[in-house]
Amino acid sequence: MKLYDLELSGNCYKVRLFAALAQIDIDCVAVDFLGGEHKRAPLIELNPWGELPILVDGELVLRDSQAILVYLAARYGGAAWWPVEPQLQGEVMQWLSTSANEIQNGPSAARLVDKFGFVLDKAVALDKAARILGLIDGHLASHDWLAAGRPTIADCAVFPYVALAPEGGIDLAPYRHIARWIDRVKSLPRYLAMPGT
Amino acid sequence: MKLYDLELSGNCYKVRLFAALAQIDIDCVAVDFLGGEHKRAPLIELNPWGELPILVDGELVLRDSQAILVYLAARYGGAAWWPVEPQLQGEVMQWLSTSANEIQNGPSAARLVDKFGFVLDKAVALDKAARILGLIDGHLASHDWLAAGRPTIADCAVFPYVALAPEGGIDLAPYRHIARWIDRVKSLPRYLAMPGT
Repeated sequence: MKLYDLELSGNCYKVRLFAALAQIDIDCVAVDFLGGEHKRAPLIELNPWGELPILVDGELVLRDSQAILVYLAARYGGAAWWPVEPQLQGEVMQWLSTSANEIQNGPSAARLVDKFGFVLDKAVALDKAARILGLIDGHLASHDWLAAGRPTIADCAVFPYVALAPEGGIDLAPYRHIARWIDRVKSLPRYLAMPGT
Repeated sequence: MKLYDLELSGNCYKVRLFAALAQIDIDCVAVDFLGGEHKRAPLIELNPWGELPILVDGELVLRDSQAILVYLAARYGGAAWWPVEPQLQGEVMQWLSTSANEIQNGPSAARLVDKFGFVLDKAVALDKAARILGLIDGHLASHDWLAAGRPTIADCAVFPYVALAPEGGIDLAPYRHIARWIDRVKSLPRYLAMPGT
C-alpha cells in the first residue's frame, strides 16, 4: 500500500498519524511538490485534483485525506477508530466535514500563505480560523475527544492543521481546551509527530 | 425525527432529497432564517455553529448535512445508499469532502452572493466553481454516478449546489456530462425538487 506523500503537508500527516496510531503499514513515497510532480503524469492520472495525499492499495486509488482515513479505518483500523454505530458515524462525520472545510479554509489556508507563499486572502483565513478554533475549543470544554467519547479518525483529521496553526501566525494560547486536547493526542500510544507540531 | 430546515438552503435540501429517495420519514420544521432564529436559543444550543440543517432524532443532535446523510443512510437508508465495503465508503467519502469544501466554497458561495447578498469574494467563488465543475464533469464523462457505480449519498450531497449553480450566475452549458447526471438524478424514483433546480 502506497501513500504519495509530502512531509510538510498536514493532509498527508493526517494519514501518517492515523497509520502510526492504528499500526497500519504504509509505504510513503515522497513527492517533489515544489517541482510540481503531483500536477504531472503519472500522479495527475491517479488524482485529477492535482493534490496530495493519494493512497494506492491494489486496484483502489483514493484522493482526499478524509476519504483515506475512512477507508484505512474501515478496512484495517477496526471499529475503535471509525465506529460502526450510525449515531457515532454521524458524530465522527461532523468533524470530517469540519476538517475538509473550516479547518482547510481557516488555519490551513493561513499557514499556506505564511509558510509557502500561496496567494490567498490571509485576513479571511484568519477570520475563519478564529471562528472555528473558538467552536472547537467550546466543544472540547466538555469533551476529551472530538467524537464518540474516544480517539477516532475525527481527531486524526482535525489535529494536524490545528496543531500547526502557529505556523500561520495564529496564537493558540487563548484556546486552553484545545491545548489540553493537543496534549492528549500527543500522549496516545505510538503518536507520530511532524515538523511544526 | 425533526429536521430544522430552510426551503432555499441547498444543505437542507440534501437531506430532504435523500429522505425522499430512501423513503425516510422526517418532520421538517421551517426556521426563520432571515430573522436569525438559527443564531438564537434554542437552536444555537442545538448547533453552536449557527447553521442549518440540524437533525434531532431522540437524544441525538447532528449538525452538518454530510454527517446527517451518513447517519440517516447508516441507520435507516440501507447499504444501497451508504455502502459497508471499506473501498466503497472511501469512494463515497471523497465526494462528501468535495461537497463540504469545494462545492460549498465554489458554486454555493457564488449563489449566496447573488441570491442572498452575502459579502463574499464572488471572483474567488467563481474560480473555485469553474475548477470543481470541470473536475466533476471529467469524472462523470466515464461514470454514471459519482461513486460505487450506483446512486449513493455522494450524489445527494453534490447534486443540490451543482444544480443550483445558475442561481450564482454560473452557466452549466459547458458541462455536458454534469447535465446528463442531473437528468439521471431527476429520474430517480421519488425524486424531490426544490425551487431553483
